[in-house]
Amino acid sequence: MLKFNKSLEQFTIACQLVRWTVIIIPVALVVGSLVALFLWLLDYVTHFRWEHPWLLYLLPIAGIGIYFLYNKLGGTSEKGNNLIMDEIHEPGGGVPARMAPLVLLTTILTHLFGGSAGREGTAVQIGGSMAGLLGRWMRLSPGDVRILLMTGIAAGFGAVFGTPLTGTVFALEVLAIGVIRYDALVPCLIAAVFADWVCSAWGIHHTHYQILFSPDTPFDYLLLAKVIVAGIAFGLAGFLFSTCMHQIKKYSKQFIRPAWLIPVVGGLIIIAFCRVLGTEDYTGLGVLSKDPGGVSIVNAFKDIEISRWAWLWKLLFTAITLAMGFKGGEVTPLFFIGAALGHTIAVLVGAPVDLFAGIGFIAVFAGATNTPIACTLMGVELFGTSNVLYFAVACFTAYYFSGHSGIYSAQRLGVSKKWE
Amino acid sequence: MLKFNKSLEQFTIACQLVRWTVIIIPVALVVGSLVALFLWLLDYVTHFRWEHPWLLYLLPIAGIGIYFLYNKLGGTSEKGNNLIMDEIHEPGGGVPARMAPLVLLTTILTHLFGGSAGREGTAVQIGGSMAGLLGRWMRLSPGDVRILLMTGIAAGFGAVFGTPLTGTVFALEVLAIGVIRYDALVPCLIAAVFADWVCSAWGIHHTHYQILFSPDTPFDYLLLAKVIVAGIAFGLAGFLFSTCMHQIKKYSKQFIRPAWLIPVVGGLIIIAFCRVLGTEDYTGLGVLSKDPGGVSIVNAFKDIEISRWAWLWKLLFTAITLAMGFKGGEVTPLFFIGAALGHTIAVLVGAPVDLFAGIGFIAVFAGATNTPIACTLMGVELFGTSNVLYFAVACFTAYYFSGHSGIYSAQRLGVSKKWE
Repeated sequence: MLKFNKSLEQFTIACQLVRWTVIIIPVALVVGSLVALFLWLLDYVTHFRWEHPWLLYLLPIAGIGIYFLYNKLGGTSEKGNNLIMDEIHEPGGGVPARMAPLVLLTTILTHLFGGSAGREGTAVQIGGSMAGLLGRWMRLSPGDVRILLMTGIAAGFGAVFGTPLTGTVFALEVLAIGVIRYDALVPCLIAAVFADWVCSAWGIHHTHYQILFSPDTPFDYLLLAKVIVAGIAFGLAGFLFSTCMHQIKKYSKQFIRPAWLIPVVGGLIIIAFCRVLGTEDYTGLGVLSKDPGGVSIVNAFKDIEISRWAWLWKLLFTAITLAMGFKGGEVTPLFFIGAALGHTIAVLVGAPVDLFAGIGFIAVFAGATNTPIACTLMGVELFGTSNVLYFAVACFTAYYFSGHSGIYSAQRLGVSKKWE
Repeated sequence: MLKFNKSLEQFTIACQLVRWTVIIIPVALVVGSLVALFLWLLDYVTHFRWEHPWLLYLLPIAGIGIYFLYNKLGGTSEKGNNLIMDEIHEPGGGVPARMAPLVLLTTILTHLFGGSAGREGTAVQIGGSMAGLLGRWMRLSPGDVRILLMTGIAAGFGAVFGTPLTGTVFALEVLAIGVIRYDALVPCLIAAVFADWVCSAWGIHHTHYQILFSPDTPFDYLLLAKVIVAGIAFGLAGFLFSTCMHQIKKYSKQFIRPAWLIPVVGGLIIIAFCRVLGTEDYTGLGVLSKDPGGVSIVNAFKDIEISRWAWLWKLLFTAITLAMGFKGGEVTPLFFIGAALGHTIAVLVGAPVDLFAGIGFIAVFAGATNTPIACTLMGVELFGTSNVLYFAVACFTAYYFSGHSGIYSAQRLGVSKKWE
């Protein structure tokens, strides 16, 4: 039974916090600013694509471009988020500085030409890579670089969604399944709060989602049962997404040669899907749709009719985009999948559409990344308190039902979901 | 790198959840009902004492009664919360069933005669002891009993404060400093939600605290700085409280003999303090005061004048009460200490009194028990979302500055607060 009981250990702790605040400020400044630039560009190219729909047909060619960019210049950057997580678990060659500009450029290309992808992967990679660079410049020890990388994740995540508290807990929770370690709790919080503030100071606004539903009775057991059923569905959707990602990646590597053909085939499948479905709602980020009545995250919160299989299409579009060589995050598409699935379930079982879109939004993400506490906090940061218990029930249930293989292969297994 | 990737592990997980739900329902029923009885009795004796102030003078005699009750009948029950935590870490002799009635009776006696104590310790011990008993009746394996004990903590804590989500995370977080393990995440949530519901169904209402302050600007950096300073003070107050508890316990054992004289001396000190201060505001639970304008948790949220040193008096009253043989929890007094200290700091630095009372309420508790994430969630469950970032900043800061020796000696050190 280890125990510390030295007098004045508070003094040591105060010194280490001051030291870290000084180290973190430049990281948060750089990461917050780059994320602001990224979000601004993303918004610009999304609207540009809506005005020039023919850009979609260039997606296969953009895929070749991305492939060669990473092949010639990428080095270890290709591994993306997993590289950052590996470096935190076991410091090795470090996270290269080029990861930030590369992932920023290629994510923007993916979105410009209509790939279905997200933002958080890009933001986290910007955060990790800049943290790694500044750590080298400041000649920090490997142990310090490890903490700095975690603050980079927190800063990137906190800034890109405007949810600093979620960013903090995400950075601690994502490293291993079933365990949170508090090593870098306060440094991550400082980094996330400051990076979010820097990003806002550049004039970036985050989409505001609203759950108008507010429980009348303190406890509605029928609704709780429906939330549990939905939570199971959200967990399985998260599981399906990560399984699709892993399988598509594996089989394309096996059967499509030479390797630069993989993104070409991926791009062609996306184009074919768009033609068959007659909509481009599943391309791009999906927060808003070109057609104001189309399927989008924002519309999933509204009481309008959206396709029952929207969630599955978005899942396929995204798995193909990201597993076949395009770049971007997984999280915004997971929000889309969850919100659309939540909408569908709400209609099927007779429940408030906005509440179920909201819990799907956070719970599919919780399942696919194994971060139920961060996602519960995200529900609070985005939608307010009144339904916090439903958020927790949905996220914890989804976490249990998503299995042990999330979207990050570098995530370790801390505590199994099977106890016996 | 451990990894599971079996097909249909979801099925196993579903089975284990159904099994656990069945096991947990009786535990939650019993714990929720006993906690309701406890809260009802507590309310009754508090009002009874207000009407019969002379009861305070019998406190030393009540102390002798409590001493002999535990001495003759207690067995290992004396160790209280620490025994439950030890049994979770390393299953040993089990948690005795008599712990529940004993702690219930002695806590009520403590409150009836004016000791300064709380509720959560009692509720957690009721939860742990009933979980242990039902586990033996159901002939569960030691591993299962371990999880059942955690659900008992979650059920007791969730029901006694009406905050099931906090109860869940508290049960996972309190076992070790700096780590959360998710073994029993969902069973704890089920137990806490159900026990809270049972407790409410018995007609128990929880005191409602309100923070009216709502930030106008998305980010007020001056206020954030004040919150950080307050967070450091809250952490040091938590540290001071646990240090006082440990020291008073140690020195009374060393210098006061025979042992049954310890509570007599403790009772006499409490009486003397009351006479010197001319108030009984620091005795009992402290949620409300007998005099509507007195010092209490509820009044600390209001913009009225309360004594600048109220927090320190409550700290001393509680440390003497609990370290010298009386029974009850530490958490409600910690709420009092935090709210009063927050009030004082708010007046000193010029900040909203209700906000600072609220963050003190949760942050001193976070520091003294090393559970910053549970306490942040408690802020959300009790006060709403608008100030969640301040809650997190205060709790995380207090956690860092409270040192490594919290109020629970059975808490283990998972990850040190000093990283280097």
